[in-house]
Amino acid sequence: MEFVKITSAQNDAVKHVIKLRDRRPREKEQLTVLEGYRELTRAREYGMELLECFFSPSHFLGENEFPLLETLASEGVRVVEVAPQLLEKMAYRERPEGLIAVAKMKRHTLADLPVVENGLYLVAEAVEKPGNLGSILRSADAAGVDGLIICNKCTDLYNPNVIRASTGALFSVPLAEAENQEAYDWLKSHGIKTLAATPHTENLYTDVDMTQAVAIVVGTEQTGLTELWMEHSDLPVRIPMLGKIDSLNVATATTILLYEAARQRNWK
Amino acid sequence: MEFVKITSAQNDAVKHVIKLRDRRPREKEQLTVLEGYRELTRAREYGMELLECFFSPSHFLGENEFPLLETLASEGVRVVEVAPQLLEKMAYRERPEGLIAVAKMKRHTLADLPVVENGLYLVAEAVEKPGNLGSILRSADAAGVDGLIICNKCTDLYNPNVIRASTGALFSVPLAEAENQEAYDWLKSHGIKTLAATPHTENLYTDVDMTQAVAIVVGTEQTGLTELWMEHSDLPVRIPMLGKIDSLNVATATTILLYEAARQRNWK
Repeated sequence: MEFVKITSAQNDAVKHVIKLRDRRPREKEQLTVLEGYRELTRAREYGMELLECFFSPSHFLGENEFPLLETLASEGVRVVEVAPQLLEKMAYRERPEGLIAVAKMKRHTLADLPVVENGLYLVAEAVEKPGNLGSILRSADAAGVDGLIICNKCTDLYNPNVIRASTGALFSVPLAEAENQEAYDWLKSHGIKTLAATPHTENLYTDVDMTQAVAIVVGTEQTGLTELWMEHSDLPVRIPMLGKIDSLNVATATTILLYEAARQRNWK
Repeated sequence: MEFVKITSAQNDAVKHVIKLRDRRPREKEQLTVLEGYRELTRAREYGMELLECFFSPSHFLGENEFPLLETLASEGVRVVEVAPQLLEKMAYRERPEGLIAVAKMKRHTLADLPVVENGLYLVAEAVEKPGNLGSILRSADAAGVDGLIICNKCTDLYNPNVIRASTGALFSVPLAEAENQEAYDWLKSHGIKTLAATPHTENLYTDVDMTQAVAIVVGTEQTGLTELWMEHSDLPVRIPMLGKIDSLNVATATTILLYEAARQRNWK
């Protein structure tokens, strides 16, 4: 198969990809950028709509890139070859892998979340760092979370660093973005018990039954959870810290809590 | 108290701090750089020897910096004020907090590790990213690890990003750096059972007794543990993954394993 080739940095499509590095144009156009073989295949597999895909064979790491490009082209994605130095300009990774795609963001609302009997949910409030949000997504995937609600968002889900850090979990975990009150009401209305992670309680997380429908609620390391969750959650839970340091990273705390829930549920 | 003040970027002490950003001069001189109030106080508290401390009051975040500087000066640390723009040049953080110190690296050998009855140990092999090593240190502190052995090191412990990500745990966790074989022999000679984290086993980590003297052994996400640990550890253990993504970040896996050990030990 022959593809169109672009060699000019003044090309509009090239400039467009570079522009999408910034949050504002991403949100306005509801588009994001994916990079690398793994990210593209996972995004496609989990139903993200790819619009354009740019490639530079001299950066390819393996043999699978051309078959992927042919599949994408057959599905209607605009596939375009770019000069190596152009691809490097377009890439946000330090070591680009020769594939960059523009994809439609999905909107994630509470109405999209599955309501699962005895489901395991996670609420993440005001997570700031893209790397932490990516790690939380990855742990949510690994622990079999049925739904993740992002509240008071401080970083956009489709920030390329979130996508990268999530290693594809952004596409596989059922997600909703919501305000705190909406999220709280949704959980209440479905009979899902809320467990608020905080150091200010005596309840050890391992002493709490997490085999019923529960939502684990985590907040930022600096300021913790806001009043709504602290005052109105069904139960506060604490992770013991046996050393000298007085706080856990939010992604680490989330992992510990989710894996305890998964253990109690016999990994089902 | 009055302190000497430097305003020239050509000053040798200023150039020296900037030079210590690179690994080679750090290792040659066995010196590293600490930054910010929390890092400095923790380092001092856990016995790091500080040699020089540079400060710029216009960057201070609180009221505690001057008392700390006076304490340091009274302990023989050379305390020097620098012009604000110089401090920004010397800092490796984006938002410097007005305090930068030069400290002596400690050497960490197996002979320094405490041998604790029914102790909990961690072996981390070939961890590459400073952020991951920092997170591992932090989880080791939180889970009450008695000793952490860094094998086949790929990043130096005193990289400023390790120090920062560890939020002080680098100074509080008993540490050794060693070759794989040395570490293995040390554990054997002290009757410490080795549990190798790997996806290639049926043994669930939660089914394994970790209440005796054990060392949890973790390797890199890409290549896993090397042959020595895979073939000669007492038991391989697996963390279930219930989602679509096929690997866990090494710091995440470490956290899960250590917190299960801490749970089984009733947080003692």
